Amino acid sequence: MEKIIECVPNFSTSDPKVLDLLKACFKKHGVLIGYECDIDHNRAVITCAGNPKKVIKAVLQAVGVAVQNIDLNTHTGAHPRMGAVDVIPFIPVKNMTMQEAVEVSKIVGSKISKKFDVPVFLYAHSASKANRVQLSDVRRGGFEGLVQKMKDPDWQPDFGNNTPHKTAGATVCGARDFLLAYNINLNTSDVNIAKKIASSIRESNGGLKGVKALGLMLKSTDTAQVSMNITDCNSISLFEVFSTVKQLAHNLDTSIKNSELIGYAPMHIIAKSMKQAVVFDEFDKNRVLEYTLWNK
Amino acid sequence: MEKIIECVPNFSTSDPKVLDLLKACFKKHGVLIGYECDIDHNRAVITCAGNPKKVIKAVLQAVGVAVQNIDLNTHTGAHPRMGAVDVIPFIPVKNMTMQEAVEVSKIVGSKISKKFDVPVFLYAHSASKANRVQLSDVRRGGFEGLVQKMKDPDWQPDFGNNTPHKTAGATVCGARDFLLAYNINLNTSDVNIAKKIASSIRESNGGLKGVKALGLMLKSTDTAQVSMNITDCNSISLFEVFSTVKQLAHNLDTSIKNSELIGYAPMHIIAKSMKQAVVFDEFDKNRVLEYTLWNK
Repeated sequence: MEKIIECVPNFSTSDPKVLDLLKACFKKHGVLIGYECDIDHNRAVITCAGNPKKVIKAVLQAVGVAVQNIDLNTHTGAHPRMGAVDVIPFIPVKNMTMQEAVEVSKIVGSKISKKFDVPVFLYAHSASKANRVQLSDVRRGGFEGLVQKMKDPDWQPDFGNNTPHKTAGATVCGARDFLLAYNINLNTSDVNIAKKIASSIRESNGGLKGVKALGLMLKSTDTAQVSMNITDCNSISLFEVFSTVKQLAHNLDTSIKNSELIGYAPMHIIAKSMKQAVVFDEFDKNRVLEYTLWNK
Repeated sequence: MEKIIECVPNFSTSDPKVLDLLKACFKKHGVLIGYECDIDHNRAVITCAGNPKKVIKAVLQAVGVAVQNIDLNTHTGAHPRMGAVDVIPFIPVKNMTMQEAVEVSKIVGSKISKKFDVPVFLYAHSASKANRVQLSDVRRGGFEGLVQKMKDPDWQPDFGNNTPHKTAGATVCGARDFLLAYNINLNTSDVNIAKKIASSIRESNGGLKGVKALGLMLKSTDTAQVSMNITDCNSISLFEVFSTVKQLAHNLDTSIKNSELIGYAPMHIIAKSMKQAVVFDEFDKNRVLEYTLWNK
């Protein structure tokens, strides 16, 4: 029963040369699944999965590459960030418990602070305090506010010193459930429309359960984007989010251009959306042949 | 590189006792994936997949069970049929070519005629003549018309004698691509509405490419059903079929109650529907984590 863990580290760069160096770390250990790199977000997201020991080795090497090559003092981008390696989420995929994924995140967090002198905050299931469960709370203030924030006794890192790394800031690390990073691009260049939609659907405003949302501007294509994290995939499906944004966009006299998934979706999420899009009574993930064979 | 073949034999029964005996044949060889049984169709569809040798053994045992237990002279149902084992499609899934699946279908067809005295027609990629490629052509006339049909020199079976088995009729066997057996139930008991919709979407009437459709009545629930085979999954997605039927139903003052998939869908088909339902620019099957891990 081979254990499989997924890890989706987010790096604050869109430099293709740095991306190549990062990818090489995961390829070397045979755990690279895929990656996205967005010039407007100025951010690269790598997806890797496999045996936990291999994943740990690959992630630590990639952190080394990022710390050497990324300077947040000269980094700008549409996406919030506070570290060269901004966040390192671990997700148990097969034959692993959440607690085991928490242990992996702590090993990685501890090693990052020792090897690279980058302070690490634990979040999500690995959080040491209630105010660190939400990534947005940990990251609030960004790289620029980090020196001040870390003077607060409430914001001492879980690993390392209470001063950020001068060029690499701090890193957030933890075990979490699957989430979907999902962006919907609108047929408008008015970022206020994206912000209005984001505000309507955000759970914290009483919107859709498990949905976090920001309105952003993609300068390279002059496109307003609703950038979302769907953190509770059991409560809501991609199709529901899509349909809601479609209706809100229509109400604001615009429409959806396209949408994109960042990272990889687990089969049960895709199956749930299919079930709703096509009104299946009894469609579930096991209806997909390869999924059933993989789990046999 | 283990070869994996899928087989989806259709049996003309909805007797739970016979179904149990059939399922046992596939379980015994470790190749049972799932099954459906419909009382209105009076038909059971079993999905199995695995090593070709194991699949062949399981299918032949199940044919023996069906021939012993099913008498078509007393069988009625909404679905067309001409054999106790009506059709045995083989689909190459992994590390197998279509030609290898054709060979498997010929081995099985030949053994069925010899062991059980049931004549076998080869169809789809295994067809020996152009008029046998389409299952509907081979099956036209049903069990009741079989004695007469098989007197025609054009309708000599590929294996066995030119007279049907007295209780088990004849069996159609062959290798084909994935297809989706997909039924949409309407919020009406008027079968003519289902027939009208089926007629509109059927490819042979100039409707949707790769779609075969019948309007049927499900007596047990007093529901009209559009029963479809989507034989060209590259040309059309479930979501397109669903959306088209939804619109046609609306035009005829009714609506869709639900839909169901018979058998198992390959990941690329589900991904294609998702892509359309949620307007993904770059969503493909590899975006599903387990699919990518399975193929790694």
